[in-house]
Amino acid sequence: MTVRVGVIGAGMIGQDHIRRLTEVVTGASVTAVTDIDADRAAEVAARIGATALPTGAELIASPDVDAVLVTSWGPTHAEHVLNAIAAGKPVFCEKPLATTAEDCLRIVEAERAHGLRLVQVGFMRRFDAGYRQMKEVLSTGSLGAPLIVHCAHRNPTVPESYHSAMAAQDTAVHEIDVLRWLLDDEIVSAQVVTPRATSKRFAHLKDPQIMIFETSGGVRIDLEVFVNCQYGYDIQCEVVGEDGLVRLPDPAAVGVRTAARHGTGVLQDWKDRFAEAFDTEFREWVAGVAAGAEPTGPSSWDGYAATVITDAAVRSLETGGETVTVDMKPRPAFYGGTA
Amino acid sequence: MTVRVGVIGAGMIGQDHIRRLTEVVTGASVTAVTDIDADRAAEVAARIGATALPTGAELIASPDVDAVLVTSWGPTHAEHVLNAIAAGKPVFCEKPLATTAEDCLRIVEAERAHGLRLVQVGFMRRFDAGYRQMKEVLSTGSLGAPLIVHCAHRNPTVPESYHSAMAAQDTAVHEIDVLRWLLDDEIVSAQVVTPRATSKRFAHLKDPQIMIFETSGGVRIDLEVFVNCQYGYDIQCEVVGEDGLVRLPDPAAVGVRTAARHGTGVLQDWKDRFAEAFDTEFREWVAGVAAGAEPTGPSSWDGYAATVITDAAVRSLETGGETVTVDMKPRPAFYGGTA
Amino acid sequence: MTVRVGVIGAGMIGQDHIRRLTEVVTGASVTAVTDIDADRAAEVAARIGATALPTGAELIASPDVDAVLVTSWGPTHAEHVLNAIAAGKPVFCEKPLATTAEDCLRIVEAERAHGLRLVQVGFMRRFDAGYRQMKEVLSTGSLGAPLIVHCAHRNPTVPESYHSAMAAQDTAVHEIDVLRWLLDDEIVSAQVVTPRATSKRFAHLKDPQIMIFETSGGVRIDLEVFVNCQYGYDIQCEVVGEDGLVRLPDPAAVGVRTAARHGTGVLQDWKDRFAEAFDTEFREWVAGVAAGAEPTGPSSWDGYAATVITDAAVRSLETGGETVTVDMKPRPAFYGGTA
Amino acid sequence: MTVRVGVIGAGMIGQDHIRRLTEVVTGASVTAVTDIDADRAAEVAARIGATALPTGAELIASPDVDAVLVTSWGPTHAEHVLNAIAAGKPVFCEKPLATTAEDCLRIVEAERAHGLRLVQVGFMRRFDAGYRQMKEVLSTGSLGAPLIVHCAHRNPTVPESYHSAMAAQDTAVHEIDVLRWLLDDEIVSAQVVTPRATSKRFAHLKDPQIMIFETSGGVRIDLEVFVNCQYGYDIQCEVVGEDGLVRLPDPAAVGVRTAARHGTGVLQDWKDRFAEAFDTEFREWVAGVAAGAEPTGPSSWDGYAATVITDAAVRSLETGGETVTVDMKPRPAFYGGTA
Repeated sequence: MTVRVGVIGAGMIGQDHIRRLTEVVTGASVTAVTDIDADRAAEVAARIGATALPTGAELIASPDVDAVLVTSWGPTHAEHVLNAIAAGKPVFCEKPLATTAEDCLRIVEAERAHGLRLVQVGFMRRFDAGYRQMKEVLSTGSLGAPLIVHCAHRNPTVPESYHSAMAAQDTAVHEIDVLRWLLDDEIVSAQVVTPRATSKRFAHLKDPQIMIFETSGGVRIDLEVFVNCQYGYDIQCEVVGEDGLVRLPDPAAVGVRTAARHGTGVLQDWKDRFAEAFDTEFREWVAGVAAGAEPTGPSSWDGYAATVITDAAVRSLETGGETVTVDMKPRPAFYGGTA
Repeated sequence: MTVRVGVIGAGMIGQDHIRRLTEVVTGASVTAVTDIDADRAAEVAARIGATALPTGAELIASPDVDAVLVTSWGPTHAEHVLNAIAAGKPVFCEKPLATTAEDCLRIVEAERAHGLRLVQVGFMRRFDAGYRQMKEVLSTGSLGAPLIVHCAHRNPTVPESYHSAMAAQDTAVHEIDVLRWLLDDEIVSAQVVTPRATSKRFAHLKDPQIMIFETSGGVRIDLEVFVNCQYGYDIQCEVVGEDGLVRLPDPAAVGVRTAARHGTGVLQDWKDRFAEAFDTEFREWVAGVAAGAEPTGPSSWDGYAATVITDAAVRSLETGGETVTVDMKPRPAFYGGTA
Repeated sequence: MTVRVGVIGAGMIGQDHIRRLTEVVTGASVTAVTDIDADRAAEVAARIGATALPTGAELIASPDVDAVLVTSWGPTHAEHVLNAIAAGKPVFCEKPLATTAEDCLRIVEAERAHGLRLVQVGFMRRFDAGYRQMKEVLSTGSLGAPLIVHCAHRNPTVPESYHSAMAAQDTAVHEIDVLRWLLDDEIVSAQVVTPRATSKRFAHLKDPQIMIFETSGGVRIDLEVFVNCQYGYDIQCEVVGEDGLVRLPDPAAVGVRTAARHGTGVLQDWKDRFAEAFDTEFREWVAGVAAGAEPTGPSSWDGYAATVITDAAVRSLETGGETVTVDMKPRPAFYGGTA
Repeated sequence: MTVRVGVIGAGMIGQDHIRRLTEVVTGASVTAVTDIDADRAAEVAARIGATALPTGAELIASPDVDAVLVTSWGPTHAEHVLNAIAAGKPVFCEKPLATTAEDCLRIVEAERAHGLRLVQVGFMRRFDAGYRQMKEVLSTGSLGAPLIVHCAHRNPTVPESYHSAMAAQDTAVHEIDVLRWLLDDEIVSAQVVTPRATSKRFAHLKDPQIMIFETSGGVRIDLEVFVNCQYGYDIQCEVVGEDGLVRLPDPAAVGVRTAARHGTGVLQDWKDRFAEAFDTEFREWVAGVAAGAEPTGPSSWDGYAATVITDAAVRSLETGGETVTVDMKPRPAFYGGTA
């Protein structure tokens, strides 16, 4: 049973996911495409034999669409996701779920009212083999209770449009999601401090930043976000428990010895680093939709949590490094909580 | 355009490739299945909505079959491949291409007579990301001319049915193929010597074995084959050139520090080690067939070469470690040679 | 010219340094020993053919003593060091230089009045080959200006007598000294936060602790101190600069593959981890004294700085994690400063 | 009790060992020096307050000399060692013990006649921390019986005076000694094969060479000797046993990430690689002599064995790669054997 996917937003990331759904992952076809730029929608749709539709609403309503993929501009996400829920169709929404906590909560409420989970948010790290190995090790209990997490998220460079709040909203948000899942624990406070800024940045940007999160269980996370580190795209994560630690591996790469050096290359592009995670994310999502199952990936609630935690981080940055309590509602039983 | 594949041989490896073609790789469907065990063929075919056919010949002839996958018992490979060539259909044949050099040559001749390459042999290492990185490094010339290759091929254990000649025929054959490709050079002699045998083996088995190959360019390859190494499935490869060396990476795995040790797990199963290589192998084969292109993977000639080289290794083993010259025909221009 | 050393304090560390001066390092002999326990002094002195003297003052005054080594109980350090300065004799003082900032300043003043540097404080990490390699790399400028330092200092366990303030005073003090030297920068604030405590500790102890230091140049240091990590003695240090990072190596250790694991041992004892650093520290100190040169190791000023910085860290711990400004005098020109 | 050492041969290696005995290792002094170049002897002796003597014989006879260090030209070693045995004085002889098997046997016989071991041969790898860790692991039996050893011995370059036989005599001889000790097994045959030679060599030199040794226990050793590998001085050793393997570590070195690479430096000089091994070698030798104990390092017998094994390797090289049986006498009980 092929899952017929309608794609809202045919920009770079949308086109990459279309390629994934049509060329990499089995069991899916893209039957409809819409974009704010109708010409682009038409062109992309023609390339893959899909129909270009004028609006997200029409695409969601189309009888040729079994499931919806939202890859449009962030501020439009909430509307499309709410429409998909209203139509009772599974919807995969690229991060963020919505740009405000209020909109996230509206989605959460709508989904609870629907009574079945329909929404998956596009945090792909949970599908990375390294993080999954870490979770496997932690879940055996052999390292005892987690106490501390050290992370780094480094990009070689970012464009001038990247501003200081994006370090939390666009960059750290990946660690926020994956660590909540990895630790099976909730983040309750955030603090952002700024070391000396790199001189290789644009003047408006505070880079690097150090983010410190605490969980309800008392785990302390420090995360270096350094988006102009020059040397490569480098993701580090180490969880220290009572009896030992586990560390995310670097990607496998050939070792070369020449000219008095022994070394390996460092990847430059996040798309290369998480290429397989993206593939696995969509493979599992498509398989779940095909089976009529609720999604097992990041939920609406996870999308909401990521938003309120990044909000707290941004407030900390703006207030000069105060520790800011995360303003999160109690987690409903529908999403595995006790409220 | 979906490639409709007919599968000859529905045993363990056949079923795994059927899973790959139907669940992992896009662009293909399995439309027909045959097996020496008609019940098994029927059962597997039913599971995926394919037709069970009584013989390979009928399957190859079926108008519902665009391309043929041969995963039957080794001694039957040649007949099916020759039939596929006669039918002008692309055929992917699991290793070995044929069990004798003579049969390999018959295939080579038939394919040349057909005038287009139709055959790909299932040596999957050329599709492994690590080997591909090695080839990329070597092809830049930054390490100078290759001089020496050190390899190890270790399995945790093998069943009692594994006999000493299989170290070359079933195990080393993977290195033989991938090194010919990696070095872009031909193997001209083979020698097999036997160190003290492990006491953890069956009495009939000479394990480990050291195989030494020389290429026409003078590169010397040593390969440790140790199929009862107990600790894991471990593949090592290092090419030493005039200006440096390049080494195959171990698979990425989380590092754990606990109980006075810092370590990572070692894989136990070759199917895990080369899972992605298998996927890539079929993804590229299907894409090529769909495009009507000649295959770019291991050719009939490569299958023939692997057979005559393993023959030489087995002769060396049987003669107590003599260096045996590989008895290979000149490579025809059709396969990139000068003959 | 053999340097005749008098040793004040013949406890465990004193005896280890006596062994080092007599058996490992050339150019020195231990001619006099004193200890609060006169019997122990007599026994140790007899073993090496030295004279046991009743007090530190008499030892310092002895014509058979060219240089003084202070390894007595911390609160007595200041008195001995001041006496040695008064006698114009070189003095190597194990950490701490003194237990209060006031006493450290008295030493600093006395040394300045003397007009030549006589004092070296026993911070041995500056003599570790790995840290020296880091400093060499940083000093080339190839990594740009340092921005962030990540450190961890882990011990397998500590005895019950270890209390929470010792995490700064006894443990982190090593990083405090070596990072001031490595960065050639001064620490201006300290903050100590406490994650969930390990359940493997004594109830009175806050362990682990995270210490955050800022330098006058804006570098931000985070240091995990975890003295009951169970798995080993593990020292990590990574300096992130504008163009890349440099990381302290783990000690070289054989790799073993067996039983499905690939691993190396983790040291358990700090004395093993820094054995060579201690040797180098004394080798260079003895050579300097023999040459009549001022010491090049950690100075009185460094001992004072370490004390006021650990004071700030302890205050932060006691006030629940406030950021505490380090109360340090301006650095006199005598110690390379501008005051 | 200071050991008074007389040094025969004040060239580069002699001067380096004099520095070691006077500046690094405690418990020794150099009291007499001789050299074929009397001016050089006088100059070196003056520098350290020793006496220059005209001949080795006079130096050995001197009442100011407790023990003898032979670092003269190889062909003179046997005479000096025999003289030292005749004088009943401990003698440390740099490799080779003698340049012919016959001369080695004369020394062995003289020492047996003396009735106590006096001779230690300067194979320093047995004192390297990494090899010692390997031996410790192997001796636990946790890896089962050793079956295979893979080694590489690479130098960045060698001068034009280096000829093909020196690959065995000067280079591989270190592995020959350390592997006999590591495996506690005897080498019984040698084979040397020559891959394509590097174009970065002098025309007369066969480089690299692969040496294959077999032990009486059936262990098979392959050793790549590549003395113009360009990239650095690199020593590799891996012992594969029935239940796992152990591998010599690379020297600890800081890791650097910059410019899209993650790497460490590779040492260029064997003196740096084995600096600590040399120090330990002399520290233990001096301590043994001071204690009046027989030496525990490589014996006359080990020097003889190394010579006959390298002879076999050279014969194999000269005969085009034949496997040559090592022509070794039975090991006398005096040296731990059964003859």
